[in-house]
Amino acid sequence: MGRLIARRPVLRLGPTGDRTRPDSIAVEEPLELRVDGKPLAVTMRTPGHDVELAHGFLHTEGVIGSVDDIRDARYCDSRDDEGRNTYNVLDVGLSPGVPPPVTGVERNFYTTSSCGVCGKASLDAVRLKTRYSPADDQVRIPYDVLVGLPDALRARQQVFDRTGGLHAAGLFTATGELLVVREDVGRHNAVDKVIGWAVLNNQIPARSRILIVSGRTSFELAQKAVMAGIPVLGAVSAPSSLAVDLADESGLTLAGFIRNGSMNVYAHPDRIDVSAARSAG
Amino acid sequence: MGRLIARRPVLRLGPTGDRTRPDSIAVEEPLELRVDGKPLAVTMRTPGHDVELAHGFLHTEGVIGSVDDIRDARYCDSRDDEGRNTYNVLDVGLSPGVPPPVTGVERNFYTTSSCGVCGKASLDAVRLKTRYSPADDQVRIPYDVLVGLPDALRARQQVFDRTGGLHAAGLFTATGELLVVREDVGRHNAVDKVIGWAVLNNQIPARSRILIVSGRTSFELAQKAVMAGIPVLGAVSAPSSLAVDLADESGLTLAGFIRNGSMNVYAHPDRIDVSAARSAG
Repeated sequence: MGRLIARRPVLRLGPTGDRTRPDSIAVEEPLELRVDGKPLAVTMRTPGHDVELAHGFLHTEGVIGSVDDIRDARYCDSRDDEGRNTYNVLDVGLSPGVPPPVTGVERNFYTTSSCGVCGKASLDAVRLKTRYSPADDQVRIPYDVLVGLPDALRARQQVFDRTGGLHAAGLFTATGELLVVREDVGRHNAVDKVIGWAVLNNQIPARSRILIVSGRTSFELAQKAVMAGIPVLGAVSAPSSLAVDLADESGLTLAGFIRNGSMNVYAHPDRIDVSAARSAG
Repeated sequence: MGRLIARRPVLRLGPTGDRTRPDSIAVEEPLELRVDGKPLAVTMRTPGHDVELAHGFLHTEGVIGSVDDIRDARYCDSRDDEGRNTYNVLDVGLSPGVPPPVTGVERNFYTTSSCGVCGKASLDAVRLKTRYSPADDQVRIPYDVLVGLPDALRARQQVFDRTGGLHAAGLFTATGELLVVREDVGRHNAVDKVIGWAVLNNQIPARSRILIVSGRTSFELAQKAVMAGIPVLGAVSAPSSLAVDLADESGLTLAGFIRNGSMNVYAHPDRIDVSAARSAG
C-alpha cells in the first residue's frame, strides 16, 4: 500500500500539552485520464487501482459497456522534475468500433436538448444512456444481511483505520459476501474502482449485487449504480433529493442511514426481505 | 429555505417494525455556470446563494480578483418541460478588461507545462495563480477559540439538522465571531459560497480569517483558502497529503481532527496561541 499512505509530522495540541509525531496521511494525487491519446478528465484520487478507476469511470459515463470495449490501458511517460514517471497519466485505447466520447464527459448527465439544465434532465440522461437497468432484477436481500454490510465494509477499510481520510465502497453478493472493497480520497473514485473491478472481471451487469458506500449518496453515486445494473445501493449516511428521484425512477433500491441495526429505505423497498428478521424476533 | 429541503416518503426499517413517513432530504440540482454566455462548468449543488457560488468559484479558480471584476450575474431563461425557469443556469458577465478563462478550468490546477500531471504541478499552479498568499499574515488565534469553532459551525447547520445530508463551511474572525455559514451537498460548493460571500462583501483577501469545514480537507479546499488569502483552515476530519503539502508550501495554517477539545496541526502551527489555554490550565 506504498502510495496510499504518506507520513508527515503532525503537532498534536490538547488540554494536556502538545507533542510532535509522524502521522499517516491519505495520499492524494491528480490522475489525467486520456482516451486514445486525447485528454478526457482529471480527477484527484488516491493512487492505486487506476486501471479499475478508468474502466469504472468510462463504464459509468456510458463510454464502454464491457471489458471488451477497451483494447489496452497504459501509463504515459509523464515525468516529474527529477525524471521519474509520475504514474499520473493513464491512456486508454478503445477497441475498434467503439465510438470515442465526442465531448467532455462533464456535461454528460446534466443537460439534454429538451429541457436545459435541471434535475429532470439528469434523470432523463441516465435513462437514455444506461445499458443495464436494474428495474427487472428480482433479487431479494435478507434484512439482516443488508443491515450488517456497512460494518463489514468498515472492517475492511485498512487505510481509513490509519488515516481517517478515505471514503470506501464495497460490492457484496445477495448473501452478504464481500467481493471487493476500494478506498479513495474521492467517494466517486472509490465507486468507480469497485465498478471497474466488476467490468474487468466480466461481472457487468452486476445483477443481484449490493453496492455499499461509506458516506452520503449523491446523484452521481446513484447514477453509477444504475449504469452498472446494480439493483441495491446502501449508504451509511443521507441521500440527496436527486439520488432518491433517480433510484425511484430507475428501479434501484436505495437505503440510507444503515446504522445501529436499522435503516431508511427511500426507493423500492420490495427487494429487502424482512420475513426472517421478523420471525426470529 | 424552500429549495434547500425536499420532502419524500421514507420507509423506516428496524428491529421493532417498520413505518412510512415523510422525511426531509437535502436538495441537489445541477448548476451550469456561464461566463459571458459561454458554458464554463456544471456542478451539482444545493440551490440558493448561486451568485455567491459563482463569485467564489471564479475567484478560487483565479478568473476574478475582486467583486469589481464581475459586471453582472443573472439566471438565463432556462425552462423545464412545464415552462418554468429552472434557475439552474447562471451567466456571469466579466467587467471590461478582465480576461475570460481561456480553457476549461478543470485542468487549471492539475497540470503545468513543466512537469505534466503530478502533485507538485498542482502546488506550482496555486503559487502561480494566487494573488493573496496567506504567508505573511501574522494573525494569532487563541487555541481556545479555534478548538471551539467546529461546534459553533455545527450549531448553525440548520439544514443538516433536518436532513443529515449537507456539508458546511464557515468563515470566522480571529476572535471566533461567525461571519457566514453555508451548507451544500458538495463540500467545495459550500466553501465557494463562503468565499463568494467574502468577495461580494469586499473582504478579499480574507486576512486574519479562519475557514472551518465540516469534513475532510482535500487539495481543492486548501487551494480555495490559499487563493482567498485565508491564513487558517480548520477541519473536523483528516486532510489529504496534497492538502498538507500545499498548506506547508503556501504559509497556510492547517488543523484537522478538531474535536473533543484537541486538534492536529499539519502546517504552520505558529499562528495558534496556546499561552492563554496553558496559563489557565
